[in-house]
Amino acid sequence: MKPLLFAMPGNEDFTGRLIAALGAEPGSLEMRRFPDGETYVRLASDVDGRSTAFVCTLDRPNDKTLPLLFTAHAARDLGASRVGLVAPYLGYMRQDKRFRPGEAITSSAFGSLLSSSFDWIVTVDPHLHRRTSMSEIYAIPVAVCHAAPKLSAWIREHAPNALVIGPDVESEQWVSTVAADAGVPCVTLEKTRRGDRDVEIKLPDLEAWRSRTPVLVDDIISSGRTMEVAIRHLSELGFSPPICLGIHGLFADDAFERLEAAGASSIVCTNTVSHKATALDVSDIVAKAMSSLVQ
Amino acid sequence: MKPLLFAMPGNEDFTGRLIAALGAEPGSLEMRRFPDGETYVRLASDVDGRSTAFVCTLDRPNDKTLPLLFTAHAARDLGASRVGLVAPYLGYMRQDKRFRPGEAITSSAFGSLLSSSFDWIVTVDPHLHRRTSMSEIYAIPVAVCHAAPKLSAWIREHAPNALVIGPDVESEQWVSTVAADAGVPCVTLEKTRRGDRDVEIKLPDLEAWRSRTPVLVDDIISSGRTMEVAIRHLSELGFSPPICLGIHGLFADDAFERLEAAGASSIVCTNTVSHKATALDVSDIVAKAMSSLVQ
Repeated sequence: MKPLLFAMPGNEDFTGRLIAALGAEPGSLEMRRFPDGETYVRLASDVDGRSTAFVCTLDRPNDKTLPLLFTAHAARDLGASRVGLVAPYLGYMRQDKRFRPGEAITSSAFGSLLSSSFDWIVTVDPHLHRRTSMSEIYAIPVAVCHAAPKLSAWIREHAPNALVIGPDVESEQWVSTVAADAGVPCVTLEKTRRGDRDVEIKLPDLEAWRSRTPVLVDDIISSGRTMEVAIRHLSELGFSPPICLGIHGLFADDAFERLEAAGASSIVCTNTVSHKATALDVSDIVAKAMSSLVQ
Repeated sequence: MKPLLFAMPGNEDFTGRLIAALGAEPGSLEMRRFPDGETYVRLASDVDGRSTAFVCTLDRPNDKTLPLLFTAHAARDLGASRVGLVAPYLGYMRQDKRFRPGEAITSSAFGSLLSSSFDWIVTVDPHLHRRTSMSEIYAIPVAVCHAAPKLSAWIREHAPNALVIGPDVESEQWVSTVAADAGVPCVTLEKTRRGDRDVEIKLPDLEAWRSRTPVLVDDIISSGRTMEVAIRHLSELGFSPPICLGIHGLFADDAFERLEAAGASSIVCTNTVSHKATALDVSDIVAKAMSSLVQ
């Protein structure tokens, strides 16, 4: 029997692409909010004995998580043979250790919650800091897809004269691979973070790359502060307007508008999160990673 | 050692009352939102080896629950000997069975989540429909406090000439007890619910009570539709402006304003939820129910 794929609200487009790629069956989900703020969930497709997957990207996760857990609970309760989660963006990866006494290690807590509700997860480039593997955080199989080849391909096609600029030493390795695969040079910023929204950066000597188009690359564009400051520095140095290229476009608050106002010539991210930027489709690599888990 | 009581955001007043009543120690909690919508949690008080309780009323529960679970996880991780939850209002009690195939039984799913994170719960008058005991839904001890005596005392003091009017047959038993304890008569509406916000009611013959002040009593005032319709009927019958008296004042959307506009002379609820109505303090009965659990 074909697997059943359900779109959580807002994930209809991505789910449709997965269904087409996998030849899966679309599941029908009813979800609405009662006047008092509680959520009603109904699986209108029969899941008994079926392998099911729920597609729910987990940016802005706080009010999405409870309805998602209820949905997984219902699927299991109604006899689904497998209950998987496709979270193109997986939240709560940031806090993976205690920096100050008393802090909640939210990546572990979130990992426990999802691990106790699902049989498997597929995600795209989770923001692993100090951990080397998702199995340190998640007790269930987590298949990780990498969007870097999509970024390289985009650069090759749209910015063959690029100078790729990575945000910090931590991401140097994957960003330099993106550049190498696109056949363009790569440099790295020195970043000092003073708060959630306050960053200071230092550019390396860029004299040799003056004729190139700067492409600022990062895994997550959230507040956009690093890119915003870099764009202004590059403009002062006389570079042509930079391109902002990210995997996950969270665009907190007015980040998208600020990047445009700072002088970005274009802003491009994958479709792991819905946003106003140009979207690179990564559903094909997600479908591929799912295929063995959902059967 | 004294127990540590932590207020989740918005529960500071109620927590302060519990701390005073129990002679407990106030715990210090840092909680803030990152620009991307994720929550930072830090227990700034040392919980190692201590009995702890977190006060978090669970109206509008979707975006409160994840930070609450993170906080409980942190407390346990940091060595708290007991981790309790004081939820003066406990959400997700409505859906306790499958009315249509495929529905999520959210009361069970929510009960499982809280049961796996806390050692005990204290709450006030949970909305038990078809279940007779919280132990059918929660795997941990749940101490239930009853606010009915507070309602009776308020009626005796402020509306000695009341006619108590209950909303439906289901609540007839506890509403008639409220009336009897206040020494006033009681009648019950016949209610037909057509949707979340659409109700039709029928009043019994009220000729004998024409000189009395109508007091509409319910356990939860959410959309307020039942009371609103009843107020208009009573006004047409020439009664004096009714009083609305509830345990939990959720006041979804503009419910409070609609009740005022319909002609309620006053709106009174307990302080299990923050609202604009007159608040009856129930922290003393909650403190009493906690005392054996938190020690």
